[in-house]
Amino acid sequence: MNLESQIRNIAKRAKGVVSVASQLSTEKKNALLRTMAQSLLTSKEAIHQANAKDLEGGKKKGLSKALLDRLTLTDDRIQQMAEGLEEVAALPDPVGQITRSWDRPNGLHVQKTRIPLGVILMIYESRPNVTVDAAGLCLKAGNVVVLRGGSEAIHSNRILTKILRKACEEKDISPDIIQIVSTTKRQALKWLVQQNKYIDLAIPRGGEGLMKWMGDHSKIPFVKHDKGTCHVYVDDEALLEMAIDISFNSKVQRPGVCNAMETLLVHEKIAPKFLSPMVKKFKEAGVTLKGCPKTCSLIPGLKRATEKDWPQEYLDLILSIKTVSSTDEAIQHIRKYGSSHTEVIVTESESTAKKFIHALDSSMIGWNCSTRFNDGGQLGLGAEIGISTTKLHAFGPMGLEELTAEKFVVLGKGQIRTR
Amino acid sequence: MNLESQIRNIAKRAKGVVSVASQLSTEKKNALLRTMAQSLLTSKEAIHQANAKDLEGGKKKGLSKALLDRLTLTDDRIQQMAEGLEEVAALPDPVGQITRSWDRPNGLHVQKTRIPLGVILMIYESRPNVTVDAAGLCLKAGNVVVLRGGSEAIHSNRILTKILRKACEEKDISPDIIQIVSTTKRQALKWLVQQNKYIDLAIPRGGEGLMKWMGDHSKIPFVKHDKGTCHVYVDDEALLEMAIDISFNSKVQRPGVCNAMETLLVHEKIAPKFLSPMVKKFKEAGVTLKGCPKTCSLIPGLKRATEKDWPQEYLDLILSIKTVSSTDEAIQHIRKYGSSHTEVIVTESESTAKKFIHALDSSMIGWNCSTRFNDGGQLGLGAEIGISTTKLHAFGPMGLEELTAEKFVVLGKGQIRTR
Repeated sequence: MNLESQIRNIAKRAKGVVSVASQLSTEKKNALLRTMAQSLLTSKEAIHQANAKDLEGGKKKGLSKALLDRLTLTDDRIQQMAEGLEEVAALPDPVGQITRSWDRPNGLHVQKTRIPLGVILMIYESRPNVTVDAAGLCLKAGNVVVLRGGSEAIHSNRILTKILRKACEEKDISPDIIQIVSTTKRQALKWLVQQNKYIDLAIPRGGEGLMKWMGDHSKIPFVKHDKGTCHVYVDDEALLEMAIDISFNSKVQRPGVCNAMETLLVHEKIAPKFLSPMVKKFKEAGVTLKGCPKTCSLIPGLKRATEKDWPQEYLDLILSIKTVSSTDEAIQHIRKYGSSHTEVIVTESESTAKKFIHALDSSMIGWNCSTRFNDGGQLGLGAEIGISTTKLHAFGPMGLEELTAEKFVVLGKGQIRTR
Repeated sequence: MNLESQIRNIAKRAKGVVSVASQLSTEKKNALLRTMAQSLLTSKEAIHQANAKDLEGGKKKGLSKALLDRLTLTDDRIQQMAEGLEEVAALPDPVGQITRSWDRPNGLHVQKTRIPLGVILMIYESRPNVTVDAAGLCLKAGNVVVLRGGSEAIHSNRILTKILRKACEEKDISPDIIQIVSTTKRQALKWLVQQNKYIDLAIPRGGEGLMKWMGDHSKIPFVKHDKGTCHVYVDDEALLEMAIDISFNSKVQRPGVCNAMETLLVHEKIAPKFLSPMVKKFKEAGVTLKGCPKTCSLIPGLKRATEKDWPQEYLDLILSIKTVSSTDEAIQHIRKYGSSHTEVIVTESESTAKKFIHALDSSMIGWNCSTRFNDGGQLGLGAEIGISTTKLHAFGPMGLEELTAEKFVVLGKGQIRTR
């Protein structure tokens, strides 16, 4: 069978079991998730063996230490994956939830009711834990999942999927509700994103390159999980200490993630007293700083930020700082250079905060809090499959609810339409 | 300038005024919609002149009487378009609505807040009233709209857009928030759906051909508004008279629309007493009937339905009837042949109704009511831009709320993340 047919068959098999996944009772889904968690723990040996092959391959390929670390499945990480599945089992089942209901003048009772989306294709890079996390969330929301992980993690992803599918069999559920595309051929992805007849949603997690590629090739609608050029704006009415704490936390607490701050905007009135202690604190933490001309004039010896810095997602201990003359200038800067991910204002002025919140349509706008709160767990959604930077369907952290759609259920007593 | 650049410029200009549209106050939007309504009424002459050109062209092209009728803008229809705008003005503004809010253990207050989507591309066929209806709804939801109507209505669409844009100018709002693609070149649409950098959502309204074309060509995510192969299932525990009324209304009240019934499923236990009066009533109304073998054996002289009939959307006074031996068989039939649009069960049994509702994930599932209620106005959403048959983003009637996204607004008192 050629590659195209192979890929089409995977997608077709997935579509074929949509009603199996969507009709599973909450109890059955939770029991399945717990069985999966148990199976992971009892299969540590097999997982390590498969993972060792990936690590060996990665070393041969010359992957960086950071990438090899992301690829590694330690006992601790296997434990975490299992706990993740237990957590998803403990979350409320979104399927069947009535999100709103109302009555019509003719007596019809209308209920908006959550239903699964159908078949979800996950496209992700080196971290093999995504295989388990994504499968757990998709299944709990009643969906069938097709997994396409990075080629570096192929042996790990294969064994993890095998374990999850075996758990399905143990629970008398068709294992086809979890599909893996286990060929590492790049052409496979190209065929995969043509399967819009069988796959309802694609969730690509990766860099700008993958998102552009998806835009150019995918016939399947997709929700992007990409770049976060996040801003903190310190207003002239900010509390000094709070502004320092929030800015520091937003940049330094975990610089390699999408909700870390990349650009700090400072009102010129507060800049002289704010920047000096702030810069000191950043330097002590090893942060490389770059400033606009105004900022550089206040902090001697600072590197100059260039036009390339403002839209940049460093994902590292690097920060660009711009001094602005007004909230409006801060808003304009974010509109021009931001990526609609996370923006925070630090101010004691309610009217300025409201202006900022109203003017910007990023997935999270924070007032007096760290950018790092743009996260499913932190916002109270439970586990998340990623942070959508697409306004369509879901914007911001995607939890279980965002993996569903809503149907109208209309309860009548024989009503018909007269006009 | 070549066509590609022309089209890109239209999309780019639209993107350039996204914050103009999104920041308009409710008062300003409503005043604009009312001015537009007034302008339509005072421009009847100009509209008729432009419309006459389209009608002349349509006659030359040999358009059918039905199509020419859809193309015609009578005084009455202009009045209706104006009233439509007034109605949209009277609807609550979705932008800024807080749909849910909650507190986190660390004191953060989280609000999900509605925001506009950005730039919406409407692709539609001959009816020029869509130009006005779609523009009104998109604008009220704070979006910029790019209109691409059918070539047969090009003169009408041009004059209508001109009137709407002039109303913007009168209200000191950039007219660029309404864009029209006024070339009739087919290649224009191909370029248009490449503008995913500038256009956030496409809403194609049309037949299966257009949807397939969009699937093959569009880089812009789109919400389909297409086929409704709607079913009514008359259970053996249905009230006879109610089942007849609902089935008749679902088929006959307006056969040419997507929420009209196309296939009637009847439980074999009720079929003998139900089918005979039902068929009589349908025949009196001029409905052509086609039956499965069982149905034909009960109603002598009935045409046989073929495999092609079951997925068919007739949009006409034609109906296929199938006698089934159980609710499960009805469910299986709908899963196999339905288009996930509208399904209705008529039964007095709550448990059977619940089974049916739970088993099927169409955009509307009705219990003891007509399929014709799957409509934004009827369900209480106010005006609608169409009925989505895509589960992603919006499923079923799309009103103002479905033309928005939601951002997270997070209100803190200096909270930072510690882990």
